Amino acid sequence: MLKYEIIAHEIEHDIRINNTPQGTKLPSINQLAEKYDVSKNTILKTLAVLESNGNIYQVQGSGIFVRQQKRKGYITLLQNKGFSDDLDYPGVTSQLISFSKIKAPLEVATNLQCDITEDFYKVERLHSIMDQAICLEESYYKTSVVPFLSQSIAEDSIFQYLTKGLNINIGFSDKYISIGKTTDEISHYLEVPKHSPMLNMEEIYYTNNGEPFDFTKNHYHYEHAQFFLQS
Amino acid sequence: MLKYEIIAHEIEHDIRINNTPQGTKLPSINQLAEKYDVSKNTILKTLAVLESNGNIYQVQGSGIFVRQQKRKGYITLLQNKGFSDDLDYPGVTSQLISFSKIKAPLEVATNLQCDITEDFYKVERLHSIMDQAICLEESYYKTSVVPFLSQSIAEDSIFQYLTKGLNINIGFSDKYISIGKTTDEISHYLEVPKHSPMLNMEEIYYTNNGEPFDFTKNHYHYEHAQFFLQS
Repeated sequence: MLKYEIIAHEIEHDIRINNTPQGTKLPSINQLAEKYDVSKNTILKTLAVLESNGNIYQVQGSGIFVRQQKRKGYITLLQNKGFSDDLDYPGVTSQLISFSKIKAPLEVATNLQCDITEDFYKVERLHSIMDQAICLEESYYKTSVVPFLSQSIAEDSIFQYLTKGLNINIGFSDKYISIGKTTDEISHYLEVPKHSPMLNMEEIYYTNNGEPFDFTKNHYHYEHAQFFLQS
Repeated sequence: MLKYEIIAHEIEHDIRINNTPQGTKLPSINQLAEKYDVSKNTILKTLAVLESNGNIYQVQGSGIFVRQQKRKGYITLLQNKGFSDDLDYPGVTSQLISFSKIKAPLEVATNLQCDITEDFYKVERLHSIMDQAICLEESYYKTSVVPFLSQSIAEDSIFQYLTKGLNINIGFSDKYISIGKTTDEISHYLEVPKHSPMLNMEEIYYTNNGEPFDFTKNHYHYEHAQFFLQS
């Protein structure tokens, strides 16, 4: 991590741990530069990160202020972090349901703008919090970008493996959200009555070179999944 | 609008109208500066706007590229634009269901961090597209920030009135999304069977001074509302 990222992380951590209320004024840019013994430019970069993450807001001529913290237990929609890394909850577990190497189904090829002859890893997992099913996930990874994936990696955090193991830089993502009723298979895994409400989220992930490499369909439990978004 | 915003708007408009495919390379910064007869700095600001709106991505040492356009008919979650201004659809209409001036209900006071003695305008509206109900909206506006609101304004775009009429600068917003089942009242307005799935979105809007002034609860039709988000 670069210096400005470390400082951003520290300030964010302080706000969260101390439960600092919305509207609390932070030290000035000069004071922060002095406190962390860095240049004003570094602090400006730190503040840009904190602002885009929704931790602070800046009022011209007035100062830097703490933003309201999200309600507990909500999943943040804006981060590309992978499921188990985002929730504040302890006790997030993932159960591998299926793992295979296949040719791209038409839906995947269409969303990732590739040929149906391309090879993909298909991974189905069930994410739970404290043994409560939250999300049934069906993911497809393009092998030309993700050359290797195994059952044991899929049982762990795929996101950590992609970013730290394979050094893939995730650039951006598109997310499509809709509401529907559970199918029999989804009802079974989420442990809800047939035709229960559910939230569907389709995600397309791109490398920082703009290449789409991951298409994921998530089905969320209607009573146990809630989402948060700052803009 | 400032010069860099006008140029950003023009480039975004060109991409949309021409349906420019994902990955199309745009001219370089120097070429854009020359084309629009502005400084390189202005173009850098333009590109920052286009990037944060999800219209382009930049690859270091390689260039500026067009991002995929969202699927048609999806509501963009990241913009603070007001319902009728966002959808690509023609034929968006809003029907005023109730309009009143009240003391803050506890839920509103809690979310906007104000006293229950504060005065609020309460507005209930039904938004439809091509006569199909999409969203039942219940909004509360703090009178200390929004001193005047009328039935006829509420029948039109409140967002336009706030930003252009009252010159309120909307700074940021928090959105909380959950899934549920429709109540009898909501079923009636959305014209769905009782206990149908629905998406609930609670929104808190802040001025650019960080003052929360609008709390809105939206209930979306499960077959007709879909959402889009870029991160």
